[in-house]
Amino acid sequence: MGGDFAPVNEVAGAVQSLRQTSNAFEVILVGKEREIREQLARHQADGLALSVVDAEEVITMEDSPTAALKQKKHSSLAVGMNLHKEGKADAFASAGNTGAVLSASTLILGRVKGVSRPTIGAFIPSETGVCLLVDAGTNVDCRARHLFEFGVMGSMYAKTIFKYENPRVGLLNVGEEKLKGTEVVQEAYKLLEASSLNFIGNVEGRDILRGKAHVVVCDGFVGNIVLKFGESVPAFLKSRLKQHAAGSLLRTAILGLARGSLKSSLRDMDYEEFGGVPVLGVNGVSIIGHGKSTPKAIKNMILRADEVAKSHLNKHIEDAMSLPLPVETALASEHGNRKL
Amino acid sequence: MGGDFAPVNEVAGAVQSLRQTSNAFEVILVGKEREIREQLARHQADGLALSVVDAEEVITMEDSPTAALKQKKHSSLAVGMNLHKEGKADAFASAGNTGAVLSASTLILGRVKGVSRPTIGAFIPSETGVCLLVDAGTNVDCRARHLFEFGVMGSMYAKTIFKYENPRVGLLNVGEEKLKGTEVVQEAYKLLEASSLNFIGNVEGRDILRGKAHVVVCDGFVGNIVLKFGESVPAFLKSRLKQHAAGSLLRTAILGLARGSLKSSLRDMDYEEFGGVPVLGVNGVSIIGHGKSTPKAIKNMILRADEVAKSHLNKHIEDAMSLPLPVETALASEHGNRKL
Repeated sequence: MGGDFAPVNEVAGAVQSLRQTSNAFEVILVGKEREIREQLARHQADGLALSVVDAEEVITMEDSPTAALKQKKHSSLAVGMNLHKEGKADAFASAGNTGAVLSASTLILGRVKGVSRPTIGAFIPSETGVCLLVDAGTNVDCRARHLFEFGVMGSMYAKTIFKYENPRVGLLNVGEEKLKGTEVVQEAYKLLEASSLNFIGNVEGRDILRGKAHVVVCDGFVGNIVLKFGESVPAFLKSRLKQHAAGSLLRTAILGLARGSLKSSLRDMDYEEFGGVPVLGVNGVSIIGHGKSTPKAIKNMILRADEVAKSHLNKHIEDAMSLPLPVETALASEHGNRKL
Repeated sequence: MGGDFAPVNEVAGAVQSLRQTSNAFEVILVGKEREIREQLARHQADGLALSVVDAEEVITMEDSPTAALKQKKHSSLAVGMNLHKEGKADAFASAGNTGAVLSASTLILGRVKGVSRPTIGAFIPSETGVCLLVDAGTNVDCRARHLFEFGVMGSMYAKTIFKYENPRVGLLNVGEEKLKGTEVVQEAYKLLEASSLNFIGNVEGRDILRGKAHVVVCDGFVGNIVLKFGESVPAFLKSRLKQHAAGSLLRTAILGLARGSLKSSLRDMDYEEFGGVPVLGVNGVSIIGHGKSTPKAIKNMILRADEVAKSHLNKHIEDAMSLPLPVETALASEHGNRKL
């Protein structure tokens, strides 16, 4: 119920997901039952593997995540997440308040063993395929240990879900050399280097779209800014081209013809197209979609949730996380005076 | 002599700058005299306000900035910067090793009163005109006080050189609200808010190209990554469009026609086109160009140096920097236990 167009797009997307897969899974729609059934009636959804669980409260985009979870015990988010926690559902997906979904995932499902901070990654298109940028904005203040964990979780996701055999993990930094960047980043370099990941060292801002790494590790401050910058490129380009064509009929005509190509080439600069991003590091499957998710995006989010639920992602994360850290750096980062 | 194509492009650019302005200033070429005179001979440079000062050593792109300055006392960089320091030149410009030019500027010229960290800004195109991103990569680890100084220096540059009457200064952050982001950024918000700058609050990654602010303040870690990400967009787009057109003659033809428009619309996504970026906060005028500067870029860098030398930029920076800080936050950031 938390999405901007809920439950209209949510119901439409759920119906699409079941039609497309011939009921390969069951969808439980959680929220205001009457509204949901009204939508279902429009889709002639009889025969689809759908059920409805009533939840009368809604956490809105304006709600403070933690306060809302405490106050609205019967929100669709809390009720749905608890269904998953209790094993009545194998995955949870929502286009609602991102902070609230993240909090509910962490508080209700708990963390995977060895993970100190669950994270959200984002998908970025690159010249060599999709790339996972992690953290995408969840944890703005990070220590080296957290960056290391993001690398582990991202790598396991890229391997399990994207099927990259040995995903290349890069640390986002201001230069390629090992001693570049802040102290925290330099310490994270050591941890990643000593890990069993396919760590390719530092990658720079220009390497993201080039696809040098399958997984780009950064703190949520940098991740958020890079993602939002990238999202703004298509609009900027459009405005530039319009300006350039202004006053010339020929240029306007040519650009009109090229518009289709431009549009489809730029489409996946916008990471919303991927349907939803996973909360990594929680004991379960929790997928967060964009508030403005279209029915197609909702459908993709549900397909993604099914895919992750059928994988052994969390087992892989737990195994990788429990690998012994190199003693020296582990001590420095966990017990040192300087909190790296 | 430090640029990738020195002294060929340097001499060509200097000649262009004097021809274009009818000798509005004098250019002193510092470096290996024989090589420089060889180039000058090719340009029939007689009658131009040019002179040559010999300097036999060259600081290369591979040299460590501080070590090179100590070891190569007769480098073109050191000799040229000293000419400026001694008042024999009114400005200095170089397409050489960025770190070395920055170090030489700080060590030889010294800092403007009140400035604790000189900085380099970069120019970014936006929908509302050119925007100055500061710091562009010089200072990766920053406290609130440094971010505040970047705001002051950037604002004075935007006012004095870009002629924005009351430049809008924004703090790059993960959200618009005052309490977003890291502790350091939150503290910088308070300092900027209490200053006499036209501080418009936090700006997000997506606001840069939109031109919400004339001056975008961030630490050099974030600045470097955003800039390099931005620089990589044209190549990514080209590769995407090529892929999209592949196999379709019609699409290929249309995109061929649109190429000119695309190219010129994207050109200034590449900040090298601006000729050079200023070192802000040093007692003098020091402009750094890209190592691969073309003659045109060198020409623009020299014109920029002339422009800055004729302005009263450093006086403006000093005046703005000496404004009293709000006592409480100034104390917290300078003397607090937590070094913000």
